Amino acid sequence: MTYERTHIERMRGYQPGAQPDQLAIKLNTNENPLPPSPRVLNCLAGIAGKTLQRYPDPLANEFRASVARHHGLGAEQVIATNGGDELLRLALTTFVEPGRPIGVAVPSYGLYSVLAAIHQSPISGVALTDAWRLPADATDRWNSEGAQLAILTNPHAPSGTLEPIDAIERVAAKFRGVILIDEAYVDFISSELMHDATKLIKEYSNILILRSFSKGYSLAGLRLGYGIGDIRLISPMIQKTKDSYNVDAIAQKLGAAALDDAEYARKSWQYVREQRMLLTSSLSKLGFDVIPSEANFLLTLVPRNAGWHDARDLHAKLEKRQIYVRWFDEDRLRNRLRISIGTSAENQTLVSALEQLRGSDQLLQSS
Amino acid sequence: MTYERTHIERMRGYQPGAQPDQLAIKLNTNENPLPPSPRVLNCLAGIAGKTLQRYPDPLANEFRASVARHHGLGAEQVIATNGGDELLRLALTTFVEPGRPIGVAVPSYGLYSVLAAIHQSPISGVALTDAWRLPADATDRWNSEGAQLAILTNPHAPSGTLEPIDAIERVAAKFRGVILIDEAYVDFISSELMHDATKLIKEYSNILILRSFSKGYSLAGLRLGYGIGDIRLISPMIQKTKDSYNVDAIAQKLGAAALDDAEYARKSWQYVREQRMLLTSSLSKLGFDVIPSEANFLLTLVPRNAGWHDARDLHAKLEKRQIYVRWFDEDRLRNRLRISIGTSAENQTLVSALEQLRGSDQLLQSS
Repeated sequence: MTYERTHIERMRGYQPGAQPDQLAIKLNTNENPLPPSPRVLNCLAGIAGKTLQRYPDPLANEFRASVARHHGLGAEQVIATNGGDELLRLALTTFVEPGRPIGVAVPSYGLYSVLAAIHQSPISGVALTDAWRLPADATDRWNSEGAQLAILTNPHAPSGTLEPIDAIERVAAKFRGVILIDEAYVDFISSELMHDATKLIKEYSNILILRSFSKGYSLAGLRLGYGIGDIRLISPMIQKTKDSYNVDAIAQKLGAAALDDAEYARKSWQYVREQRMLLTSSLSKLGFDVIPSEANFLLTLVPRNAGWHDARDLHAKLEKRQIYVRWFDEDRLRNRLRISIGTSAENQTLVSALEQLRGSDQLLQSS
Repeated sequence: MTYERTHIERMRGYQPGAQPDQLAIKLNTNENPLPPSPRVLNCLAGIAGKTLQRYPDPLANEFRASVARHHGLGAEQVIATNGGDELLRLALTTFVEPGRPIGVAVPSYGLYSVLAAIHQSPISGVALTDAWRLPADATDRWNSEGAQLAILTNPHAPSGTLEPIDAIERVAAKFRGVILIDEAYVDFISSELMHDATKLIKEYSNILILRSFSKGYSLAGLRLGYGIGDIRLISPMIQKTKDSYNVDAIAQKLGAAALDDAEYARKSWQYVREQRMLLTSSLSKLGFDVIPSEANFLLTLVPRNAGWHDARDLHAKLEKRQIYVRWFDEDRLRNRLRISIGTSAENQTLVSALEQLRGSDQLLQSS
């Protein structure tokens, strides 16, 4: 006897990247290579028993006020969530009738289609162009299929490409549903691009922006994200569809502390950008085709090489050396690896391992 | 233009109890009056930046192993959740088709009907007997209305009454859906009753037990709960319907530390039981009719008294003195207050305030 709903029984869950032990070099789940701000750790050290003993503020008002100040918005335009993932789920629960599709780019973050499957929403998927950009007719496709929600990852994962503001604006102006811009990687965009989608919120009441502390603030373990948008988007999620105490008391405090240390954050983002440039260059020299990335990872086309059979094989060979990168069993991705930007030392270890793998086999072949 | 789904627009959200500042006497949301175990606070002090920087274990395996040892179950029979509330939501998502009812007792924890409204499930509500017990025909009613999930709060909230094991067993044996036993208050049951519903799991594959760290372990601020049951109930929630990283890294560690300090937990439960007895006696002397409670709160019938107009008025008068208790605008509850068991000092302050409110008005009347 099973009690599962039929469609749940038939669906497949999301498979997170491996979480190896702490000694491994972990370039597979896009965490920040640097630790959180000392100010966050100080705040953690000051958490009192009383904070744990009482329920947290169900609305996370102090944290939301911090976020609002950070963006120059009103606190009522902010919802705090248990990681960005919760906002994705809430968007479906609040804005999408089961049976109505959600629009996504293909490929995209795998969780989108898992959440759609749970919700019994079909996927209205539009293939990215060869340059990994959203095609011009994407919005028309989503509208014609009746999508009530579309999710745009920007910078895109797993490619790292960025849709500029005017492209987002065109989608928002035309799309008949809610457009969720998943900005999990926004902090790593080159600063000279001056990319800022939050200014669109005032003009487009259907734009919901997702932000996360997992990457930009080195707090993946904490589970903290937020959504910003028009109050008519935010309010039903806060008042009705989120779990009543969705964000714990520690996360509320540490999140505010992280925002508070803007200088540390800026430095860590700049570090990642510099390492991204260096790693891109090293990988290119090794024959990898690297898509220019505005995120904290690189999507690389693995060159044919005697040292490894294909991307999957290279992935396995690196794992044997305790270096974890991500391989996806998915169209357009099977011959690629997604590599998170690590510390300088981690990136160099990866590059050395690739050189050795290539070299050892070349020696083997010549013997 | 609204993007909300019609039924979400029409529904009303859950209203959590007020969260006044820390100086107030807070007897309104059933927190534990004692702080968390020193071992938990030590564990918190030892959390390293690395723990926050990396994603948490998506399956919370170490924590689940602790829970499994605690109950003598297998780890695969345990799911960790972001507070008990998440398990309630997951049970609907996983086992209930929208449109199919969920069975509850009336009155019950208000969140049940809010979750049902979000899910578009009607409520199959059976009124509790005059003694606040489940009527004999409850299961038949739920079956005949086609409920796929029934939720039994045990000890019951807001009355504090306990359904004994044989009553639960009768429901489980007959009910055609999943029976979720919400044991948020289980730790406060008189120990001489030897109440243990976990032993039913082996026999009944439709029993899902909810546990929470909010009350019994003084960790409401942390958001940690878990579900235990047959692997066929637990597995789809873990593999498919829960958010991928639903429980943060700190909660996973602190939860295990809390379970580890069994002696501290036992002492805190015993303290609450003793205070429950004393407060019951004091309130009875003041003319309050108190339902015998196996939880960490008392549901009291407010006596007609010149010092206050009715329960709502008394609630407001106490709040003016910075003493928070809970009043529900709901049938059978409007003339009652639910009072959480506080520390000895807090309970005495409440009792003195009641004496003064009664007394000052009696003086007023006689003048």
